[in-house]
Amino acid sequence: MNREALIAELQALTSAQRASAAPAHLDQHSQDQSSHAAHQPDAVVWPETTAEVSSIAALANRQRIGITAWGAGSSLEGNSIPVHGGIVMDFTHMNRVLALHAADFQVVVQPGIFYKDMNKALAKSGLFFAPDPGANASIGGMVANNAAGTRTVKYGATRDNVLALEVVLADGQILRTGCRSTKQSAGYDLTRLLVGSEGTLALVTEATLRLAPLPEHFSAVVAAFPTTNEAAQAVFGIMGSGLNPAALELLDTATVTAINNADALGLHPSPTLFVEFHAASEATLAAELGMVEEICRELQCSSFQSGVGRAARDRLWAARHGLGELFKRIHPGQGYLITDVAVPISQYAALVAEGTAILAQLEGVSGYLFGHAGDGNLHSHICFADDAADRAQLERMVNDRLVEKALALGGTCTGEHGVGIGKQKYMLREHGAPTLDLMRRIKTLFDSNDILNPGKILGGDRAA
Amino acid sequence: MNREALIAELQALTSAQRASAAPAHLDQHSQDQSSHAAHQPDAVVWPETTAEVSSIAALANRQRIGITAWGAGSSLEGNSIPVHGGIVMDFTHMNRVLALHAADFQVVVQPGIFYKDMNKALAKSGLFFAPDPGANASIGGMVANNAAGTRTVKYGATRDNVLALEVVLADGQILRTGCRSTKQSAGYDLTRLLVGSEGTLALVTEATLRLAPLPEHFSAVVAAFPTTNEAAQAVFGIMGSGLNPAALELLDTATVTAINNADALGLHPSPTLFVEFHAASEATLAAELGMVEEICRELQCSSFQSGVGRAARDRLWAARHGLGELFKRIHPGQGYLITDVAVPISQYAALVAEGTAILAQLEGVSGYLFGHAGDGNLHSHICFADDAADRAQLERMVNDRLVEKALALGGTCTGEHGVGIGKQKYMLREHGAPTLDLMRRIKTLFDSNDILNPGKILGGDRAA
Repeated sequence: MNREALIAELQALTSAQRASAAPAHLDQHSQDQSSHAAHQPDAVVWPETTAEVSSIAALANRQRIGITAWGAGSSLEGNSIPVHGGIVMDFTHMNRVLALHAADFQVVVQPGIFYKDMNKALAKSGLFFAPDPGANASIGGMVANNAAGTRTVKYGATRDNVLALEVVLADGQILRTGCRSTKQSAGYDLTRLLVGSEGTLALVTEATLRLAPLPEHFSAVVAAFPTTNEAAQAVFGIMGSGLNPAALELLDTATVTAINNADALGLHPSPTLFVEFHAASEATLAAELGMVEEICRELQCSSFQSGVGRAARDRLWAARHGLGELFKRIHPGQGYLITDVAVPISQYAALVAEGTAILAQLEGVSGYLFGHAGDGNLHSHICFADDAADRAQLERMVNDRLVEKALALGGTCTGEHGVGIGKQKYMLREHGAPTLDLMRRIKTLFDSNDILNPGKILGGDRAA
Repeated sequence: MNREALIAELQALTSAQRASAAPAHLDQHSQDQSSHAAHQPDAVVWPETTAEVSSIAALANRQRIGITAWGAGSSLEGNSIPVHGGIVMDFTHMNRVLALHAADFQVVVQPGIFYKDMNKALAKSGLFFAPDPGANASIGGMVANNAAGTRTVKYGATRDNVLALEVVLADGQILRTGCRSTKQSAGYDLTRLLVGSEGTLALVTEATLRLAPLPEHFSAVVAAFPTTNEAAQAVFGIMGSGLNPAALELLDTATVTAINNADALGLHPSPTLFVEFHAASEATLAAELGMVEEICRELQCSSFQSGVGRAARDRLWAARHGLGELFKRIHPGQGYLITDVAVPISQYAALVAEGTAILAQLEGVSGYLFGHAGDGNLHSHICFADDAADRAQLERMVNDRLVEKALALGGTCTGEHGVGIGKQKYMLREHGAPTLDLMRRIKTLFDSNDILNPGKILGGDRAA
């Protein structure tokens, strides 16, 4: 089917305005926030109903045309780049709250609603969806990628907070999985299989999310350490003590310095932890802060500020969440590489040591190390004069080595960004051939024509 | 293959002592704790290694012989009854702790270890596996059935606390899923798909479990109410307030009276809540107890005891966990029916009202209502003069009606006992045909010859 015929079919299934091959539309849907190469789709379609999603899938399946779901384009591993062209299905017209079950701490939403917009609406009911990827991601994207972030250490990742889904299969069939009971034992857990499948098994058209009450009392800690090793040891000490922080982030000296230069937060220019607690009472907070201070002082922290107020705390998190954009501003026009590995918490200091050693060996590039330390999750962001040879070399020197180390420490090649494009090469090593083969067979069971986000997670058979 | 040949083959793959068709062995593996009819296997085998499990699976797959995994036989929905005969694979020889990662709050165990024995060993490290089914279940059984219980309201069900598995597929292939990182995004979540699949997709040979630190401070509340409706309203009030109890159980008057008669606990003979809190400080506990008391008093509780000491608290839980055995002692020789449904917490009072009304209509039988109220999970236990006609009628009058109500309220036909034998008839109604069909296709993908726990969850094609 040529592009004109495809657009005509898509318009017939939706409306004249809601299917397009205009260059600007194709361009807007060609790249996410990762550094993976852009690739344009053949068409973009904006469905407004589950029935439309179903009819578009059925068409694509008959014609063997790929469909890549699109939310906010904020993924970090190329997850939403249509690497084999085909249709990008932009869900932003399906962005309604369908039902708020405030008494059950649950909300039913369409996939195109954006995370921050949803939480702003939920705040009126004293509730919020806790997994916090930083970016204003779409809920569909968060479900597809099992998004996590700063608050996962306490509240879990997206997979832990989805109770039910409505999805459309590759052939257009509409399914419901799960229900509104928080306890479920009625057969195979399709909901959790679909969460994190990165749009390769089905298209999410509705999600029932578990919410949390907005914390009544919270407190933030900023603690600086002489070296990243001591900071990482403090992470282990805090998590091992049985404390339950709502966030526990590590930032290396380069990252802290970049934040200071941009935001004038006046942080101590050395490896730093941001810690936050949510509690039902001030007394609990005080006890928790006391324990954290003791752990940090024992590890020779160079500064310790606790009881940070709401305004300062909001600025800290804005700075933390703005890191990706900040690095791009500091290094305009440069290429970048973002990494994402995670290990058991007892191995975090070893992982951070490896990251620090790797960055120290790099020449002529700027490297930043930071992460959701409470989960054993470490990111690096490397900025370099863009050149394919440099990129390939950095990929080997940084990404390959960090993944190698994480796997040796009992961890994973991706803690939260997903497999997308960039982590496929590590899947065999992480899972082994029999497990990877089983994943492939599950993909084939759901999507025998490989039309759903082709080229992701498991590669697939399509020629690029 | 006749029985003699099968035993000979199994002995060749294990040892002369570890495969048997002795009547006592067959009888011991013919029934779980449910009231479903016993059915003997053709053979029992006790593997000691993953390699043996693999070779037995390969044999069974070639010969099209069913394998039903066996742990403690404590399942409550017929999950481990070999309804089509074949091999029962008893995992109790594979009961070792393989690795304790105390600093990560993790343990790696074989499936045949029993829950209480494991937690006794872990207590030395100040840790415990939180999901608490009451019975001394095997970990393999808990993983297979996604076991939950009194502590799930705070700590989650088994599925929320399994990080990695080693499993054997129907054809004997050995797979590993997941890893020791608490954050994982590397492809399809096979671990959570396998947890709760009731031995129909694979045989678990090793599990990496997430543990919790033993609580430093805890407190129990016992509150009695004039009617079950007020007790159920209090459950909703407690959960809706944002409190995070470690247990929140409801018991109706008949249940409380049975406990009083047996254990002389001196409970107020009316609908009662057991509530427990775990906290990092006494101050937190005091604040939480204050809030609970206020909620209970507003709902006219007839008695409220808080700050119950450790000894009394342990007796309360022993009484709660011993209910099944207690009812059997009170009604010796009688038949019984156990139900298990769950709903969103806002609908719990409506579910309890239906349960109360159903029990009030029964004549000539004894009915007890209780459940993990904080999760919206309700059980009933009905004792009756055993007669097939009575059983069929009670099944219709109690089970069918409770399930009907739970589904109408947005809930599920099984909160924690699983589908097993007794809940298969509700699967279509709960999930719809397309979702059930997808579950069937997943079953076929994993186990094309239907040898793994045949006749469970989805029935299968085997003649009974």
